[in-house]
Amino acid sequence: MDKPVIRVAVVGAGFVGSALIEMLSDPSRHVALVDAATAPIELVGVAVRDLSKHRAGIANELLTSDAQSLCEREDLDILVEVAGGIEPARSLIETALGRGVSVVTANKSLMAACGTDLARLAHENGADLFYEAAVGGGIPILRALRTSLAGERIDRVMGIVNGTTNFILSKMTSEASDYEEVLAEAQALGYAEADPSADVEAHDAAAKVQILSSLAFGTGLYGEEISREGITGIRLVDVEFARRAGYVIKLLGVAERVGEFGISRRVHPAMIDVDHPLASVHGAMNAVFVEGTKAGPLMWLGQGAGGAPTATAVLGDVLDAARNKVSGRHDVPFMVDTTLHSVSAGDLSSVFYISIDVLDRPGVLAAVAGVFGNHGVSIQSMEQSGFADEARLSFLTHHARSSDVDATMQELSGLESVDSIGACIRVIEGGTQ
Amino acid sequence: MDKPVIRVAVVGAGFVGSALIEMLSDPSRHVALVDAATAPIELVGVAVRDLSKHRAGIANELLTSDAQSLCEREDLDILVEVAGGIEPARSLIETALGRGVSVVTANKSLMAACGTDLARLAHENGADLFYEAAVGGGIPILRALRTSLAGERIDRVMGIVNGTTNFILSKMTSEASDYEEVLAEAQALGYAEADPSADVEAHDAAAKVQILSSLAFGTGLYGEEISREGITGIRLVDVEFARRAGYVIKLLGVAERVGEFGISRRVHPAMIDVDHPLASVHGAMNAVFVEGTKAGPLMWLGQGAGGAPTATAVLGDVLDAARNKVSGRHDVPFMVDTTLHSVSAGDLSSVFYISIDVLDRPGVLAAVAGVFGNHGVSIQSMEQSGFADEARLSFLTHHARSSDVDATMQELSGLESVDSIGACIRVIEGGTQ
Repeated sequence: MDKPVIRVAVVGAGFVGSALIEMLSDPSRHVALVDAATAPIELVGVAVRDLSKHRAGIANELLTSDAQSLCEREDLDILVEVAGGIEPARSLIETALGRGVSVVTANKSLMAACGTDLARLAHENGADLFYEAAVGGGIPILRALRTSLAGERIDRVMGIVNGTTNFILSKMTSEASDYEEVLAEAQALGYAEADPSADVEAHDAAAKVQILSSLAFGTGLYGEEISREGITGIRLVDVEFARRAGYVIKLLGVAERVGEFGISRRVHPAMIDVDHPLASVHGAMNAVFVEGTKAGPLMWLGQGAGGAPTATAVLGDVLDAARNKVSGRHDVPFMVDTTLHSVSAGDLSSVFYISIDVLDRPGVLAAVAGVFGNHGVSIQSMEQSGFADEARLSFLTHHARSSDVDATMQELSGLESVDSIGACIRVIEGGTQ
Repeated sequence: MDKPVIRVAVVGAGFVGSALIEMLSDPSRHVALVDAATAPIELVGVAVRDLSKHRAGIANELLTSDAQSLCEREDLDILVEVAGGIEPARSLIETALGRGVSVVTANKSLMAACGTDLARLAHENGADLFYEAAVGGGIPILRALRTSLAGERIDRVMGIVNGTTNFILSKMTSEASDYEEVLAEAQALGYAEADPSADVEAHDAAAKVQILSSLAFGTGLYGEEISREGITGIRLVDVEFARRAGYVIKLLGVAERVGEFGISRRVHPAMIDVDHPLASVHGAMNAVFVEGTKAGPLMWLGQGAGGAPTATAVLGDVLDAARNKVSGRHDVPFMVDTTLHSVSAGDLSSVFYISIDVLDRPGVLAAVAGVFGNHGVSIQSMEQSGFADEARLSFLTHHARSSDVDATMQELSGLESVDSIGACIRVIEGGTQ
């Protein structure tokens, strides 16, 4: 038998693609790569949008603007898609998988939109579909869920999976700065986009939660919307209240079991205990915290973005897919457990922090407290601070249903003496150590 | 073709073995296990030392005291060794591997002693040898190094890999208690053995460092001794000095590149910056911090011991070995890089914290400072605190060679005015976020 060679094509030569190509071409890594892939890896082509742009480290003859033909090459073993977006990524991946070519992608939106269909297509054609880089950048969490923890019953996954929002919240905390000020700084540093909505409105984190949930629990990836609250409503006063109370505010992506067959998937800001391992995840770092029935708490921490870290995750996938190609097998796709149903965020209970600004006059507190009572939301503690003719009321509730808290907020906003409704943030109690 | 069944035998039914058997027999996990293993797993026998002891959850007809015959079963696919110790574990594992039976073990001492030979035997016979549970209990770090990070160039691995010593150091820090007091408490709670030397003298951590190093760098596992300092010399005054200076003291296992071909492997207490992710790993938790050239910093955190967490790591290995058996392949064993050489701890530089008790009389400080100067160890800062007719001198050095610091300590201990030499602890500077 001829010694096999694994032929790899890359679509996209941005930060991730070029870092990957640099690693694949690095002579000092050659022995380790052959050893890990069980065969030499040959880069056979790189599809880019703009052929006229100079690409350091990529041989000219490898470049093409015809991604479709690259995916249709007869001898192709693995397609790496690091261009992003839904189309043409989806069509290219379908072309490759349909021909038994294994696919490695970093495309979280695509996986969240139609990952189940793509995984089925891969399986039917004896190919792998790996996407480690889609969640947590360089953090190898997905393979761990898929392999090491495959036999474990997972109860909850909580992640800080968006570096931009964690950078903003960390700065607001460490520098006592306002949201708008820190957002502008993040934009100037390139940590946040000019239109920051994908990050701050939690669309990015929501896609990652769906992917984590599909591997942890067997929920499908069909592009459905999950409950999503961003960080645009978080004010410095909330950050400071959290600190006084022994918490920090993080944007958490959560997927957890509710009863035997329910799964809640959601993204929202949360106050977490300063002793919780997630509380010390600062700046643009990402982390995923997993609670297993037998394994107990586990956490993965690392750089959630950036070309080089993300490329290491892609490379790990390429090596795994290469090993499989050499031994003529492919990995089990994730199971979709059809007995599961989605639990709405409104049906879940939590302790809530609620902050409202009211006019400072007699009877206001009684009126406000009455509204909480109307909806069965019981108050654990209250802090009042006055300024001019207004007062700020900050409440911690006892455990309350989210929908009851929403109704409370709704009724409060209609009270004449309520000037404005501030944040309403879930409180996650307890560290784990 | 008959649908394959994977036959598994377990040697050892202590905390780990019985937790594993419980998971393998749990009806609610059955579908997920078959899905992950790509075949049903059948438990064919459990070898125990004492047959007369009642074992809840293990069918009587599975029990045997004849481990050797169990390993020689014609139909055996996977042997799980969770009995520990060098013999008979080694002979049983060799028997199994020699017959092409894959082996999953939690045995860190055995792997450190002869892991390279066992891995070669496995490879020659087309079998897997997995040992995820040997480091960090339930933390899936070894498979990540072996697969996801196989193409990455790792610069350093630092781990808190012994729960007993981390429990002791955490308690000394949080409760301002002395070493002996906390050790007694740990012994009463069952966190420390009656003879605690394997933990507090860092033998356990040293074996884990060797295993991490073999996967991160390709150093071999041949039972050689590595540099090892335990925690028995750490006093409350050292813990308190660390806190004032913005550090915490942890027992760190370290494997790192030194130059192109050097690898340093060692275990020692270290003062680490409170902002370093390892600093917030408290109690009996374990964590492994990995620095990759491209991936940047990564950390894994979890329960480093306990029957159930450790059993989840064993189960992950069993499922991986089962998938491989079904598809008729085995994993690449770890590569041994023969170009590497071991760098002695004495040749490395670090900032050091040094504490000595001296007689409080004129000229002492000059004499002590002179000794530092004799060995080229330059002082960064000094703190003097008096008590009765003695004084305690606490130094932070500038970067100094470890062997020069050792020589300094040696000469200081001979000075008439020096009453006793306290701790000498490396300082690791900088967080990573």
